[in-house]
Amino acid sequence: MGIVIDVIAFDGDDTLWHNETVYAQAEKRFEELLAPYGGDDEVVDALFETEMANLPTYGYGLKSFALSMIETAIRVTNGRIKGWDIQQIIDLLKEMKQTPVQLLDNVMEVIPALAKSHTLMLVTKGDLFDQETKITRSGLAPYFAYVEIVADKTPDVYRALLEKHQIDPQRCLMVGNSLRSDILPVVAVGAHAVHIPYHVTWAHEAVTLQPGETGGYVELEHIGLLPHLLTSFATG
Amino acid sequence: MGIVIDVIAFDGDDTLWHNETVYAQAEKRFEELLAPYGGDDEVVDALFETEMANLPTYGYGLKSFALSMIETAIRVTNGRIKGWDIQQIIDLLKEMKQTPVQLLDNVMEVIPALAKSHTLMLVTKGDLFDQETKITRSGLAPYFAYVEIVADKTPDVYRALLEKHQIDPQRCLMVGNSLRSDILPVVAVGAHAVHIPYHVTWAHEAVTLQPGETGGYVELEHIGLLPHLLTSFATG
Repeated sequence: MGIVIDVIAFDGDDTLWHNETVYAQAEKRFEELLAPYGGDDEVVDALFETEMANLPTYGYGLKSFALSMIETAIRVTNGRIKGWDIQQIIDLLKEMKQTPVQLLDNVMEVIPALAKSHTLMLVTKGDLFDQETKITRSGLAPYFAYVEIVADKTPDVYRALLEKHQIDPQRCLMVGNSLRSDILPVVAVGAHAVHIPYHVTWAHEAVTLQPGETGGYVELEHIGLLPHLLTSFATG
Repeated sequence: MGIVIDVIAFDGDDTLWHNETVYAQAEKRFEELLAPYGGDDEVVDALFETEMANLPTYGYGLKSFALSMIETAIRVTNGRIKGWDIQQIIDLLKEMKQTPVQLLDNVMEVIPALAKSHTLMLVTKGDLFDQETKITRSGLAPYFAYVEIVADKTPDVYRALLEKHQIDPQRCLMVGNSLRSDILPVVAVGAHAVHIPYHVTWAHEAVTLQPGETGGYVELEHIGLLPHLLTSFATG
């Protein structure tokens, strides 16, 4: 009998295209920028603290990240940061905004293939403008029947999306790299989930499952294995 | 016979709640902040230039505005701006983000009344996170059947919204303060539009109609006149 999946939903950042590596490189340049002021390894920790403090006010995205870098630079240098060094943070933001979208391995084969047999949905989180331009630049837009950009990924948000598109959770599968955003809330609303870890996880997205806890989802090493999993679902 | 309207779509900023006045106050404080550096009246013009240059990269919204203020402050002071003065811009952003949503006159009477007879849709532009929190804080969310936050308001975007919700343009009316964003693109897709000017218009949103050009829309002085207009449509 097996499990029949009609709709496959995908996360974008670090599931279809690289994202966290772009941030990690920016953090490295941020450290270098502050080094002459006596900034040390703790600069990145200080940045993360600022980001977390600002998250309820700013939301996710590149502009929030840049604003938190500026605020951290002012604080850790005790206001000594020079105007032109802050301009370097702004230039870094603009550079990040224009970084070409780099798809993960296998994505360009798997997505068009699955689009022939399933309804595909993209569910990404963050800055609306950022995400829209990333989707456009990715070249993947034509394969997705629905594109949903949400401010956060909670069970309520997923429930509302399923209702809006009249999708039966039991026939829906979400694929993503973040346990916190893509997997656990999806399992909580009764849909299927496939976790494909990315080699870097933002500290904010990290969760720890208790030993022995299965979580009710499947873990794959890379997206290239997804078509086979779907076949085994159907016949399993 | 008259015109039958099923769906009334509303813009948010400066149509349902005050927005441009919040920015205007911030610009005043920006001028004051830069005064000790010899900044003059042209500071606000310089800010507008920076905003326009950044729009394709940043999109709309408060964070974009703050980043453009920081960049302008660095440029007009030739890098002399102090770290703690830039922190003041960040503090101003946070203050703006937390400013209570102030509804325009009559909104709290008109919207609930119209929600009884029509399907209401909110179509706002800008930062997803900003707009979502504003809608929540406005108290108006329960009256809207659909809330659509878009990155820009073009004829294509309106066409897609109408299709998505299967709305006949001839039975749809959009109400907004911006000719550029709420009226002209709506008229272009064959829907009805009501222009309610706000007392301040952001330079970017200003358009000039040629003399004698009607534009195919109705202009009202305030939103309190909308129910009467709808009645005259139906019987007219």
